[in-house]
Amino acid sequence: MKIALAQLNYHIGNFESNSSKIKETIIKAKDSGAELVVFAELSVCGYPPRDFLEFDDFISQCNTVVNDIASVSKDIAVIIGSPTINPDVKGKDLFNSAVFINDGKIVSTHHKSLLPNYDVFDEYRYFEPSRKSNIINYNGLNIALTICEDLWNIGEELLYPYSPMDDLINQHPDIIINIAASPFNYDQRNIRKDVLSKNAHKYYIPLLYVNHVGAQTELIFDGGSLAIDSKGNIVEELNYFDEDFIIIDTNSLKNNTSTKEDKPIEDIALIHDALVLGIKDYFNKLGFKRAILGLSGGIDSAVTLVLAAEALGSENVKALLLPSRFSSQHSIDDAIALAENINVPYETIHLDDAYKSFGSLLNPFFKDMPFDVTEENLQARIRAVLLMAFTNKFGYVLLNTSNKSEAAVGYGTLYGDMCGGLSVLGDLYKTQVYELANFINKEMEIIPVNSITKPPSAELRPDQKDSDSLPDYDILDKILYNYIEKRQGPKELVAMGFDEAIVKKTLRLVNMNEYKRHQTPPILRVSPKAFGMGRRMPIVGKYLS
Amino acid sequence: MKIALAQLNYHIGNFESNSSKIKETIIKAKDSGAELVVFAELSVCGYPPRDFLEFDDFISQCNTVVNDIASVSKDIAVIIGSPTINPDVKGKDLFNSAVFINDGKIVSTHHKSLLPNYDVFDEYRYFEPSRKSNIINYNGLNIALTICEDLWNIGEELLYPYSPMDDLINQHPDIIINIAASPFNYDQRNIRKDVLSKNAHKYYIPLLYVNHVGAQTELIFDGGSLAIDSKGNIVEELNYFDEDFIIIDTNSLKNNTSTKEDKPIEDIALIHDALVLGIKDYFNKLGFKRAILGLSGGIDSAVTLVLAAEALGSENVKALLLPSRFSSQHSIDDAIALAENINVPYETIHLDDAYKSFGSLLNPFFKDMPFDVTEENLQARIRAVLLMAFTNKFGYVLLNTSNKSEAAVGYGTLYGDMCGGLSVLGDLYKTQVYELANFINKEMEIIPVNSITKPPSAELRPDQKDSDSLPDYDILDKILYNYIEKRQGPKELVAMGFDEAIVKKTLRLVNMNEYKRHQTPPILRVSPKAFGMGRRMPIVGKYLS
Repeated sequence: MKIALAQLNYHIGNFESNSSKIKETIIKAKDSGAELVVFAELSVCGYPPRDFLEFDDFISQCNTVVNDIASVSKDIAVIIGSPTINPDVKGKDLFNSAVFINDGKIVSTHHKSLLPNYDVFDEYRYFEPSRKSNIINYNGLNIALTICEDLWNIGEELLYPYSPMDDLINQHPDIIINIAASPFNYDQRNIRKDVLSKNAHKYYIPLLYVNHVGAQTELIFDGGSLAIDSKGNIVEELNYFDEDFIIIDTNSLKNNTSTKEDKPIEDIALIHDALVLGIKDYFNKLGFKRAILGLSGGIDSAVTLVLAAEALGSENVKALLLPSRFSSQHSIDDAIALAENINVPYETIHLDDAYKSFGSLLNPFFKDMPFDVTEENLQARIRAVLLMAFTNKFGYVLLNTSNKSEAAVGYGTLYGDMCGGLSVLGDLYKTQVYELANFINKEMEIIPVNSITKPPSAELRPDQKDSDSLPDYDILDKILYNYIEKRQGPKELVAMGFDEAIVKKTLRLVNMNEYKRHQTPPILRVSPKAFGMGRRMPIVGKYLS
Repeated sequence: MKIALAQLNYHIGNFESNSSKIKETIIKAKDSGAELVVFAELSVCGYPPRDFLEFDDFISQCNTVVNDIASVSKDIAVIIGSPTINPDVKGKDLFNSAVFINDGKIVSTHHKSLLPNYDVFDEYRYFEPSRKSNIINYNGLNIALTICEDLWNIGEELLYPYSPMDDLINQHPDIIINIAASPFNYDQRNIRKDVLSKNAHKYYIPLLYVNHVGAQTELIFDGGSLAIDSKGNIVEELNYFDEDFIIIDTNSLKNNTSTKEDKPIEDIALIHDALVLGIKDYFNKLGFKRAILGLSGGIDSAVTLVLAAEALGSENVKALLLPSRFSSQHSIDDAIALAENINVPYETIHLDDAYKSFGSLLNPFFKDMPFDVTEENLQARIRAVLLMAFTNKFGYVLLNTSNKSEAAVGYGTLYGDMCGGLSVLGDLYKTQVYELANFINKEMEIIPVNSITKPPSAELRPDQKDSDSLPDYDILDKILYNYIEKRQGPKELVAMGFDEAIVKKTLRLVNMNEYKRHQTPPILRVSPKAFGMGRRMPIVGKYLS
């Protein structure tokens, strides 16, 4: 049987756009001779719909789209994802379902059994888990239809006491189909391929996997849909970070001998592509075109600018240079050199007049108190006021340029450099930002090498260096990674060889700065544990702080 | 049997403080002749510990505290709440448990079966639900020990397919004990009493209920622990918004004839007390003493100031008057009158110099473009810069004064009046803020009546009124309440009689301003649906927007 895999970029709640994309693709599949076309999990409404699911009107619109799609699906079968209503008075109101449509009619609806409820996932907030699974028989093919997490309860540690495939395999399926919404992080591509291959291998039948592609605020869906033969070999791997469509002949998966060469992709290349897509979709889906950012001559704003120009076009990005009395000439030169390298228009505003004016308003109260973090923050906040004035007057969106190391230890000014509609680098440690800068410069010097090699500085007081306040990033980032991504506690970190005093100071900074991170923009997620919806910490908590 | 109910204010992750409070109370219970003392759900670590639960070190510290408490509990039994490790390789790593200690030893551990995972609750993120329940026999008394939600699957619509009491009742308990972490909202006191009474009545045995008290950032636990007789009558109701301790003789609950008079409390009085506790605990638990806010002469900052002065003492609150060229003299007079009424020190800074200075920096770019929202936001942001400079220089925390109506429709300036460490009124619609102002003025005119009666205005352009941009608050707040608290969609709202164009505009404003709310401070929660952790919406979603 010929089955089409449709890897599309949906928009949460945009029923009109999702529905017309799906319908166009059904026609394309039919024209290509497919007997069945498969779309991703919750494709009619986009993923994750979050608390929109609590509105009857939203569910009713999903239902309308499903019926509408069914009515146009003549002479072809379709699998789409949609929330459906749980008719039982017991349990949550909804199921996360895969709807099987054939020749204009809804034939059967299959509910997700395993509901991810960790990290960025909240599915048990909305959905009742299914406790029974039935295969589909379509034109002689027995299909075990599963939804994303349904196939992930495999291996040593099992998160769920029940696996739907244990039921389904007894009904003698010929193939597994899995519709998914699996967001990117730099580990995910390999883990996902491994988990899905293991399933095909374990049950000894081919597997077709259809993922989302496209960013929904912080979550970037990377696509990479798969066709896997019954030995667990990957036969087809769809595009990453782009829509894709393919026809698979299931016969070719049964006694397959050819496998697709597994081309390893560098993490940093994946991260680069993810961030560009993340910026692009944030603007597209919100209906904005143009970005602005403060360009300091440092590495973070340099990398953000390059990514923004790639995503939106140089002509749609504006750089503001906002030097204060503490900015060095070489920083200004580096900023200008970069903007000119990539043809991004820029303007310069010296903020000293505003700084002086605040000084005269505040001096009657501050009197002879010495220069401290107040005056540092003041400069950062004046920059934010200027940038936001540009966004209001001209309709830009401000891009935030903070990195994960700074966000972790609170090395940033709330309502100053922590402003913005979207944080581009907020899930990359400083050392990863350097890696990304070098990746960008691989072919030619786009980012002035001076921005990469000079010691990092906020330039908010004379001769300031990040290393005055923070451990070296080489050390700091390793401690942060092991604490944040790997959930290692103070004892484990010291046992790994990190200095006890530095560990203690670092963890304390991370935990006591939760209040700052609470107010930051959404951060494009590229790691397995990003600040934001996937990491939920008490603000007034007192633990290691 | 004499059982002590201990209603305490815990601090998340502060093991030292929680542990010593618990140990002191055990001694007090023993001295009062109690055979058993009962503490709340997850009392050793505070509630909600959120992702701290993912750290082995945190769980190990909980375990240490439990063992430590056990070792000091001689000649008395204790029930405390703690996370415990799930020994099974299948399922989540932890249980949410009630530990039964007797005479220095842990006798049994009882796991929560029903895990709330809606609104502000995320328990299935961390815990495996228990599927079996065993009673405790202690000194001849059979105790059905349950944890919070375990008793809430009662009535018409059942959220869970299973109820642990269905098992427990077959083991012939003499009494139900429920340890809880049930946060306040203005409906919760009555609902809670009703649900618990129904349980006692249904199973025809007495019920003892121990809740948390105290605020943990946005969640305010109101206490109100209960003793209920076997007919479902409330015999004892502990303090609201304060720690409390009581000894109950279980014999008195069996053939009880006296019931406590049910004194209805006005919602607005509960809200008032909740907000005062919310402010107090935010400062106490973070180790801050002093608050600052911008006092405009309007109703929101007036009410916030009064609450802050009640919570922290007038001498620990500072008001800044920050008039611009558009501020009216009567607003300034009203602000001063209030500050003087309640003895709050205040300072005045005219922001025009800073406004002019930004004007001259921006004019080369803005040229002849007309005054618009840019210049309005500029004033709000200059105020924020000044207020934040005071917080940095003197160690204040800035209180945010936005209300829920503004937050809902985005009528506020990001990085301007939306700044602050804590939002005091962010869960009160404008009409509720008026109600609270009148409540405060019940005995005498504390808030100048002019602040209450004048038409609300942001005073950011000449003769501006809120009603220029927004529907009247009487209408707006009803639409918002039905959309946000009651999850009514556009069709339902129009069917309720609201004007279709106003409904459409309002819902659009709510949904398109999700990006602003993403960056606001934590909001003290007093309603059943507050902005913040209990309402999770996609930012780039396009639904009704």
